[in-house]
Amino acid sequence: MKRTSSTLADGREILYYDLDDGAVRELVDPRRLPPVSTAPQLRRDPFLDEWVMIASHRQARTFLPPTDECPLCPSTPTRHTEIPASDYDVAIFENRFPSLSTRATTVGLTDPLPMVPMEAGFGRCEVVCFTSDHTSRFADLPAAHARLVVDAWADRTAELSAIPGIAQVFCFESRGEEIGVTLSHPHGQIYAYPFVTPRTSRMLEVARAYRTRAGSDVFADLLAAERRAGERVVADNDHWTAFVPAAARWPVEVHLFPHRRVGSIPELTDGERDDFVSLYLDVLGRFDRLFDAPLPYISAWHQAPVDDAEQLAHLHLQLFSVRRAADKLKYLAGSESGMGAFITDLLPEDVAGWLRDR
Amino acid sequence: MKRTSSTLADGREILYYDLDDGAVRELVDPRRLPPVSTAPQLRRDPFLDEWVMIASHRQARTFLPPTDECPLCPSTPTRHTEIPASDYDVAIFENRFPSLSTRATTVGLTDPLPMVPMEAGFGRCEVVCFTSDHTSRFADLPAAHARLVVDAWADRTAELSAIPGIAQVFCFESRGEEIGVTLSHPHGQIYAYPFVTPRTSRMLEVARAYRTRAGSDVFADLLAAERRAGERVVADNDHWTAFVPAAARWPVEVHLFPHRRVGSIPELTDGERDDFVSLYLDVLGRFDRLFDAPLPYISAWHQAPVDDAEQLAHLHLQLFSVRRAADKLKYLAGSESGMGAFITDLLPEDVAGWLRDR
Repeated sequence: MKRTSSTLADGREILYYDLDDGAVRELVDPRRLPPVSTAPQLRRDPFLDEWVMIASHRQARTFLPPTDECPLCPSTPTRHTEIPASDYDVAIFENRFPSLSTRATTVGLTDPLPMVPMEAGFGRCEVVCFTSDHTSRFADLPAAHARLVVDAWADRTAELSAIPGIAQVFCFESRGEEIGVTLSHPHGQIYAYPFVTPRTSRMLEVARAYRTRAGSDVFADLLAAERRAGERVVADNDHWTAFVPAAARWPVEVHLFPHRRVGSIPELTDGERDDFVSLYLDVLGRFDRLFDAPLPYISAWHQAPVDDAEQLAHLHLQLFSVRRAADKLKYLAGSESGMGAFITDLLPEDVAGWLRDR
Repeated sequence: MKRTSSTLADGREILYYDLDDGAVRELVDPRRLPPVSTAPQLRRDPFLDEWVMIASHRQARTFLPPTDECPLCPSTPTRHTEIPASDYDVAIFENRFPSLSTRATTVGLTDPLPMVPMEAGFGRCEVVCFTSDHTSRFADLPAAHARLVVDAWADRTAELSAIPGIAQVFCFESRGEEIGVTLSHPHGQIYAYPFVTPRTSRMLEVARAYRTRAGSDVFADLLAAERRAGERVVADNDHWTAFVPAAARWPVEVHLFPHRRVGSIPELTDGERDDFVSLYLDVLGRFDRLFDAPLPYISAWHQAPVDDAEQLAHLHLQLFSVRRAADKLKYLAGSESGMGAFITDLLPEDVAGWLRDR
């Protein structure tokens, strides 16, 4: 893998990850771009005691441009995209409309209320272009190319974690207009948060209580139990298992766990990365064959926070879809959005069976 | 107010709430209905230590029927709906496709895993028809009729809370196809849960810590601070204030708080109920005028759990919309659904100003 770093016309960083160690990438962005205007804020919700990000400059962001205006395709002599190169393998750049930014400032701003402290929305939001092929999907990537994405995630996680003030790095992909994805070019995103996210905080709290009570690791114990039971396992190999969680929140949901406890992607060995690629491409293929149409999905990497002294977290990928039938979507209704109480319309054991059969 | 109770053909309960104390309602449902088949389950998510409801029988539920087949309209001599009456003011009945049911049983079922205990999905799900007028909206209701709805919520909350095993009662309305509402007839729902919901648990935990630290009530202190600041207040009257929370999670979000701390709707006095109606109808009108088209919204009553010995909860209504512009919706993307970390695209102070001006 070769990594090339460069800077876009407005000062944002762009990184190329190439399979070919001899690759040479264009480094000049000929566009005239307005300065990145970012004033993201964090405000502390006093009732839930959680940070909320407020990014009011994002309202104007690009929404489903026609294919010939895709900002994630390579540039051509007559059309300049976000990627000033005639081709690429994997390209990662800072989002032009970030919810978090290392340039964020709250100069001149004051707390809305003493009970609602405000801070700068410090952090970083990156766009990860999985391939230069606009019409492709992650599931279509050759294994070596998918492995390059994993290595790029590992590189980004390590580098972003080293920035002072970053508390957690989240790599994810959202796919499908059904769930509001504004660009159809195959891509994911990375958020480097200045706080530990609410879901991760909760999971670590539960894992801590479990360790105290049971003397062992809740993730490892659950993984072992699912492997023993087998009923919800979709597929596995030497280093990874994919299963539908017994208490799934989403109509179609699969968790991919490495058998060895690690906190984050950079800790994975070569063999574990290759086995992940093999299992993930397999499961993504099953997702797309489930309803005879590509499934909208969110693929979310649960990594340990940067400060992982307790080693409570167990890296895993949560892959889920809001599609509950060929012609039906699951919406977050009153119970979910108002009360945080989830209702699933499909039996996890049925979903696991369908995915195994695809 | 007159309350009439009856039974539908398949044994489900229906209740009529009438403004006219002399109203006489039809009590016979002439339909032949299959028995309500319900096997909702609760499964405990081991990673978040929260209950998830699994209601796999709901897959077949009614989806956007044509107006002349609306199951919430009054019955006619030739067409029998869920409401066997030629007219009604407010009608409430047990959902035919419930996520929770007092008839739920897990006979013959076993825990999916020892780490994932299962219980019967015990509880109750009710449908609240606000008016017999199919084309109306809550915002259109005359004050006396809206007050009848409030009294019906109070009655249901008190009665459902008295069922052994019920831990929390949630009254809410979801409106708009954009958010998956399957019936356009103006209606809401009531969930009587056998557990305290995740969001309420969290709010009470935060309120408890605040009381220990500050010696006062987090809700009362925040309400007083918002009233003093004024910047985010949309409207108020003697007994209630409506404001945009300083750390709003949704593009358009308003909280309605009574000035006096009560835990639940039944505790509200006549004067407080009338003032709520006046303020709520006002705010709903502003919602619908915001973007020149009715706003899809969720309106969620946060009530104290049935066991409210600590008196930590402060009744309030959370009204929010996923619409962030006339032609744009806010979707829960990777950060929200994967990490529970919310991003808002609008400044709460701007939204409050727009709503005040409507």
